[in-house]
Amino acid sequence: MISSSSSRPASAALVLSLIFLAAPLAAQSGPDVARAYRQAHEPALVRDFAELLSYPNRAFTPEIREAALYIRDEMRAVGVDTRLVEIEGGSPLILGELRVPGATRTLGIYVHYDGQPVDPNNWTHDPFDPTLYSGSMDAGGEPIAMPEDGDDVDPEWRLYARSAGDDKAPIAAILPVLRSFTESGVTPTSNLIFMFDGEEEAGSRNLGQYMEMEREILDEIDIWLFFDGPAHASGRPQITYGVRGAAGMEVTVYGALRNLHSGHYGNWAPDTGNVLAHLLASMKDEDGNVLIEGWYETFDPIGEEEQAALEAMPEWDEQLKEELGLVRTEGEPQSLPERLLVPALNVRGITSGNTGSLARNVIPNTAVASLGIRMVKGNTAPQLRQLIVDHIERQGFHIVEDDPDMETRLRYPRIAKVTGGMDGSIAARTSMADPFAQSIQAAASAAADRAFGPGSLVVAPGMGGTLPLYLFTEVAGKPAIVVPVANHDNNQHAPDENLRIANLWYAIDLYAQLMTMPATVF
Amino acid sequence: MISSSSSRPASAALVLSLIFLAAPLAAQSGPDVARAYRQAHEPALVRDFAELLSYPNRAFTPEIREAALYIRDEMRAVGVDTRLVEIEGGSPLILGELRVPGATRTLGIYVHYDGQPVDPNNWTHDPFDPTLYSGSMDAGGEPIAMPEDGDDVDPEWRLYARSAGDDKAPIAAILPVLRSFTESGVTPTSNLIFMFDGEEEAGSRNLGQYMEMEREILDEIDIWLFFDGPAHASGRPQITYGVRGAAGMEVTVYGALRNLHSGHYGNWAPDTGNVLAHLLASMKDEDGNVLIEGWYETFDPIGEEEQAALEAMPEWDEQLKEELGLVRTEGEPQSLPERLLVPALNVRGITSGNTGSLARNVIPNTAVASLGIRMVKGNTAPQLRQLIVDHIERQGFHIVEDDPDMETRLRYPRIAKVTGGMDGSIAARTSMADPFAQSIQAAASAAADRAFGPGSLVVAPGMGGTLPLYLFTEVAGKPAIVVPVANHDNNQHAPDENLRIANLWYAIDLYAQLMTMPATVF
Repeated sequence: MISSSSSRPASAALVLSLIFLAAPLAAQSGPDVARAYRQAHEPALVRDFAELLSYPNRAFTPEIREAALYIRDEMRAVGVDTRLVEIEGGSPLILGELRVPGATRTLGIYVHYDGQPVDPNNWTHDPFDPTLYSGSMDAGGEPIAMPEDGDDVDPEWRLYARSAGDDKAPIAAILPVLRSFTESGVTPTSNLIFMFDGEEEAGSRNLGQYMEMEREILDEIDIWLFFDGPAHASGRPQITYGVRGAAGMEVTVYGALRNLHSGHYGNWAPDTGNVLAHLLASMKDEDGNVLIEGWYETFDPIGEEEQAALEAMPEWDEQLKEELGLVRTEGEPQSLPERLLVPALNVRGITSGNTGSLARNVIPNTAVASLGIRMVKGNTAPQLRQLIVDHIERQGFHIVEDDPDMETRLRYPRIAKVTGGMDGSIAARTSMADPFAQSIQAAASAAADRAFGPGSLVVAPGMGGTLPLYLFTEVAGKPAIVVPVANHDNNQHAPDENLRIANLWYAIDLYAQLMTMPATVF
Repeated sequence: MISSSSSRPASAALVLSLIFLAAPLAAQSGPDVARAYRQAHEPALVRDFAELLSYPNRAFTPEIREAALYIRDEMRAVGVDTRLVEIEGGSPLILGELRVPGATRTLGIYVHYDGQPVDPNNWTHDPFDPTLYSGSMDAGGEPIAMPEDGDDVDPEWRLYARSAGDDKAPIAAILPVLRSFTESGVTPTSNLIFMFDGEEEAGSRNLGQYMEMEREILDEIDIWLFFDGPAHASGRPQITYGVRGAAGMEVTVYGALRNLHSGHYGNWAPDTGNVLAHLLASMKDEDGNVLIEGWYETFDPIGEEEQAALEAMPEWDEQLKEELGLVRTEGEPQSLPERLLVPALNVRGITSGNTGSLARNVIPNTAVASLGIRMVKGNTAPQLRQLIVDHIERQGFHIVEDDPDMETRLRYPRIAKVTGGMDGSIAARTSMADPFAQSIQAAASAAADRAFGPGSLVVAPGMGGTLPLYLFTEVAGKPAIVVPVANHDNNQHAPDENLRIANLWYAIDLYAQLMTMPATVF
């Protein structure tokens, strides 16, 4: 369980209480209180985080409910009125309310407590047996014992376990912030509504329904904060105003009815790999510009604030290219943050015949491309899909939804099957001109200044990945901002996921700041 | 064992012998004798063929030697001086000599007695338990019992077993032809040297060495006949003057050092599928014309005879397109036989990321294409490989032989790994103006007239597939002609391989004709 006074030497708790009580309560700032609490309890906070991480949390498994019950109880223990919202076949939604007498605004805080599936064989340690390291494994860190009370905790330590970065760290930071507030009599300046999703890594498929069920409560929220995702690749803290949507679709082109012997038919039978190559090449030029008619007329342009934020972002492309072994990027000289604000079309995969030792002397009868679409605000999946379908037709293909029958084959010289792409996760972006958003940014900036140094906060108009932000911005019509805390190299979705302890400390600073933003700013 | 008089009722053998002895030997033509013999022994010939097919014959297995010994003994029984030529680790070559006193020319007859590997699970019956059908399985044929002596044999029957079509049928036809000659006192008009390869389906990798070992004998040969392959798709008999060579190579293009999340990096990271698509599209246009500089200047042009033969070939493209479900072919309006006389470049396979249910939201870090090259006379694999490499370089790629290291990655914007393609099977073509070849064609034409009707022989300047013909034409410097007998729908290399009995009868007619060609024609 999360450290409460009872799990620590009584004397220490007593000393702390005395420290806080010695000063007038009103004079103690939330961020100061939370930081002092953290500094006094670092070993216990690391152990508590490890305990939280020990609960298996794959969505839709029976054991995820154990994780939900544990978190519910921990939230209750720090004064949040918390319950599980459940529907048949879903993973529980954890809903917590902390009402502040006299507060005139309400923050919604979204976290997800489920994690990506794991294959333990690919992990150095059991993904649910959290293991502490003296540093990043990649940088030569070594496993170390969990700290005892009184031990020094090095902020460069890393805790390895599934969901360490994505996305249990926020829960491990919210709990001590609220406990420190309770113990010191600090009152948040906003009502707080916590919503912890148990299905995010499985597509948050029931989140819309859960939100509809709890609509009355959620409607009170003025702005949503998404505590998810990694910080900027530079290591600096970040907030983000938008996410891209994602959709996948598949295109299959056809040759002969069956694979043909490349000797008997080569130079005569349609060469499906080449047919597909021409089609894909027609969709995007060698510089990364999508050539599909209308592609760049589909989305909402960014405003002045976003343009200014883009210009203020750290120049990180060169470092990233070096790290990834790249000389050339699509859309040069535009930077990665700029490129994330236009819809993307990528080849997720191509399958046709075989390569390597399995290659055979055949002309494959089909070639299949899986296309990945990343949408930005204003795009919808059906809209972009239709542009792609129209483009394929303009290349001379007859479009089918199923494998063509003989009649269809003998009627059309070029046939393409298009499947998928009708739905997908939806892009969202909150305007940086939104006044609520501006106060969040001010608070985050202050926390970042404190934890990482003056001016360290990176403000991104949009991130590349996908979160169910549209349920908040588009469906519920609220502003929403992504406020990540994890180190960018947390191995999110991969084996040996981890959190750098300094990032947990930053989360505590940040959340304390956000929960006690002055009323005047908001 | 192959039927000899002793395995048939003595009375029938006696009657036959009497029939033949009743006429003066010299007046009996070889083709007449062979046909009469066949007509008198049809049930036994079907059973003998089944016995030959019951010997497992995958190259380099221990049991293939049993097949070789059986065939050696059968050849000896019909008067051919036959022995096994063996080398360490090889499958035996069967070499037979039939010297004809006074003959001034020598025919080399190539057959392969090994077969493609089998997966019995994919076969309707055990591939080495030959099963007779009343017709093609595909056309509703039913299994029937092996015929007893005296039963009528329907030429539309099919015998199902591995190597029925490819390539034991010639052996099953050679044996009764020679037996009929022996029994009737017919003398071939040429010396005959039989060479039965035991490794063809495994690439004839020792054939060159075997031929070198037996060079003294093989040097006597004036022209080689390849008894292998299927007849024309129309069902008409065929002879072919050339084969294509084949080579495979692989091209890998590189993106980032690892697969990247398509959300975080899509629109910025190189899209390997698209990079490969542009490269492949640059190699061949949408009409099937190879765009690689110099491609069509690499090979020996055909002559007048070949051009005339092409024009006389049956117009079969439309039927084939209908069968294969195609409206459009590469190089239209050129026909398939024309297209087989120029070098081909095809995509054998493409691998990049995944498609279907395995598709994930990544930008794959590599995309790989396996290219299949089919060469014609005059081409070599290194020559065409170099043209392809030069082309890839002209598209802006730096060529590597191994996966690029970080230094290479950070130096070149586009990198392609090229592997393979340095060797391959070699194309060959015998000139149709060759006088030896012309006499073979005359004999084949006569046999075809007899078995299939006047003018039925299809004469093809080249076939699409590959045989080790170059060892004969290029290395040994002899003309060589492919003289196939199998039905085109024999399921060569596939499960449920079969031979139509009428094609075995045609083989008997054909070989009798070839072995007794008038001296004046040759």
